[in-house]
Amino acid sequence: MPFGFSRVVFLSHVLDTFNPVFPGDPPVEITPAARIGHEGYHLHRVSFGEQAGTHWAAPAHFLTGGAAADELDPADFFRPAVVVDVRARVGEDPDFVLGPGDVARWEAAFGRIPAGCAVLMWTGFADRWRDPAAYLNADESGRLHYPGFGPEVTRWLIEQRAIAALGIDTMGIDPGADTSFPANRLLLADHRIHLENLTGLGQLPSAGGWVVVGGLRIRGGSGSPATVFGLVP
Amino acid sequence: MPFGFSRVVFLSHVLDTFNPVFPGDPPVEITPAARIGHEGYHLHRVSFGEQAGTHWAAPAHFLTGGAAADELDPADFFRPAVVVDVRARVGEDPDFVLGPGDVARWEAAFGRIPAGCAVLMWTGFADRWRDPAAYLNADESGRLHYPGFGPEVTRWLIEQRAIAALGIDTMGIDPGADTSFPANRLLLADHRIHLENLTGLGQLPSAGGWVVVGGLRIRGGSGSPATVFGLVP
Repeated sequence: MPFGFSRVVFLSHVLDTFNPVFPGDPPVEITPAARIGHEGYHLHRVSFGEQAGTHWAAPAHFLTGGAAADELDPADFFRPAVVVDVRARVGEDPDFVLGPGDVARWEAAFGRIPAGCAVLMWTGFADRWRDPAAYLNADESGRLHYPGFGPEVTRWLIEQRAIAALGIDTMGIDPGADTSFPANRLLLADHRIHLENLTGLGQLPSAGGWVVVGGLRIRGGSGSPATVFGLVP
Repeated sequence: MPFGFSRVVFLSHVLDTFNPVFPGDPPVEITPAARIGHEGYHLHRVSFGEQAGTHWAAPAHFLTGGAAADELDPADFFRPAVVVDVRARVGEDPDFVLGPGDVARWEAAFGRIPAGCAVLMWTGFADRWRDPAAYLNADESGRLHYPGFGPEVTRWLIEQRAIAALGIDTMGIDPGADTSFPANRLLLADHRIHLENLTGLGQLPSAGGWVVVGGLRIRGGSGSPATVFGLVP
């Protein structure tokens, strides 16, 4: 592997038609458009919402006039990453909300969160990916129950640590039960992005790794499904 | 910038509805699916063929049983890159076909092509991107006229230099006039990929740069439109 890292890993799911999508979002469609036995080559037509599968969002996703997917800089997609393992807490409470105390404990153990980094919350929900009902975890009223970043810690990470991204292995950086999206509304400005529906976060160390965010730059887009790579030191 | 490189650059076009597509391929569609003033957030539905825009192809694009988009390894998307500037030749002849002598001259000037690298052909056709008719450059009979890699040099680069990818700033690594796709048929096996419709190749040095290939991993896919990054030493 290049650059002095020991290896590169996938932190993204394969895009597939069964993928859970946020309620109301377009489905993922993958249909044959050309075949080796006919046209001479294999090709799909693919259709999805911009926030399908493992994906990122640009500020324009929530912020009128915010930078769209095609208005970010190349370096915005290369970020140091820290991983906050909250699997035990989420095992007790799927509505777990990350707070400032959790980050203070993380820094006591692993050091100060570097400026310009992506803070990745490892909840364990990626293990539910192939069961969309368990992944979205809706109750009888339709309210979703998965963990996320609280507004206090989101504001603190932006103001005190100058982070560039929040990421999580659930459907959203906001807790499923909070339909006002405060973490997204605080985060998505300037050139900050979110990373959602991540997987394989256990392959990265708590600190010292990097993320490289692929996907597409769609004209005026809100973001894109993406291959997300992790660089392991 | 990380990893000892001086900067990261885009080598990919923004995906847009006007984009030239290979004859017969599905069009690129970008339509509103949610709006900040209505649903609270901005989101498009997006539809395209897997070889739309700047894109890569997996072996399954031409090879029955070849590795599909979701069967490649993470490191297959990180490659050292060399850039072969053939703009002057293409200026004289849009049907220019790269041959073994051209690569021999490149190696005499810049050194041996390293194993596992991506050989990127800089034709200048990226300047025609916003004019799809000029980019495809079809004659009255429908035959396309843009430059590409010949079969001899493709075979030599695979066998003698163990390259991992061919890339070009035209619609295809095969010359437009050759509808039997010999370069694709030779290249796309094992874990080798192509990169097509690149842009901005002048930002990379002739040798010493790297490419990082984004996009999506689509289940059973032939490849994907992609953000392609260049790492400049």
